[in-house]
Amino acid sequence: MPNRRFALVRRPLLRALNSWRELMSEIAKTPKPPYYAVIFTSLLKEDADGYGEMRDKMVELAAAQPGFLGIESVRDDLGITVSYWSDIESIKNWKSNVDHQKAQRMGREQWYVSFKVRVSKVERDYGI
Amino acid sequence: MPNRRFALVRRPLLRALNSWRELMSEIAKTPKPPYYAVIFTSLLKEDADGYGEMRDKMVELAAAQPGFLGIESVRDDLGITVSYWSDIESIKNWKSNVDHQKAQRMGREQWYVSFKVRVSKVERDYGI
Repeated sequence: MPNRRFALVRRPLLRALNSWRELMSEIAKTPKPPYYAVIFTSLLKEDADGYGEMRDKMVELAAAQPGFLGIESVRDDLGITVSYWSDIESIKNWKSNVDHQKAQRMGREQWYVSFKVRVSKVERDYGI
Repeated sequence: MPNRRFALVRRPLLRALNSWRELMSEIAKTPKPPYYAVIFTSLLKEDADGYGEMRDKMVELAAAQPGFLGIESVRDDLGITVSYWSDIESIKNWKSNVDHQKAQRMGREQWYVSFKVRVSKVERDYGI
């Protein structure tokens, strides 16, 4: 069962930001574990037309899904995006979202040299 | 019990690379799950003298630990480093390594505005 508490604070937060880039320069404010992390690492083709626009759309769409807790993303040659989710069911729902599936297909066919998705359960966290 | 198979291939691999930067532009070749991922996200102070040198040393030292499986790291404003480990015991040993503890102390005191460490168990992965 997705944690609806987060659904309530998420959308106004995202609207208040000027862009997803602002969100991308912050450490995600996740709740106490356990929760889930989807670690997505990828290498882009040199010609990846349309990728940036689709990525922005997908971040916005992901953030609107039930169970979404936060996202962190950085790209140099390698891109790492970690999205956080309250439960496995929410991850499955997001993976099978129709618009997201279209994006996944375009990624496989047009944009990525290679990628890896790792679905993991966060057991412990700490920081400053 | 750390997976010693990886210890055997790791050191020559790291020596063969010109620098950790080359390693950092690849997707880690991890084994079949389950294994562990330590997701480390951080924001640096503007003045983070000595940070780059220490980071390089720590990547090299981490890669020499039992149970180490691979590492991926990218920094823009936000830095994301994901290291992969065969088991929780190896993660604990690495956390309590004397040289690493010194680096952790310097990070807290001198380099990081904020950071978050998330220890997670990879249950599933796929990719191309």
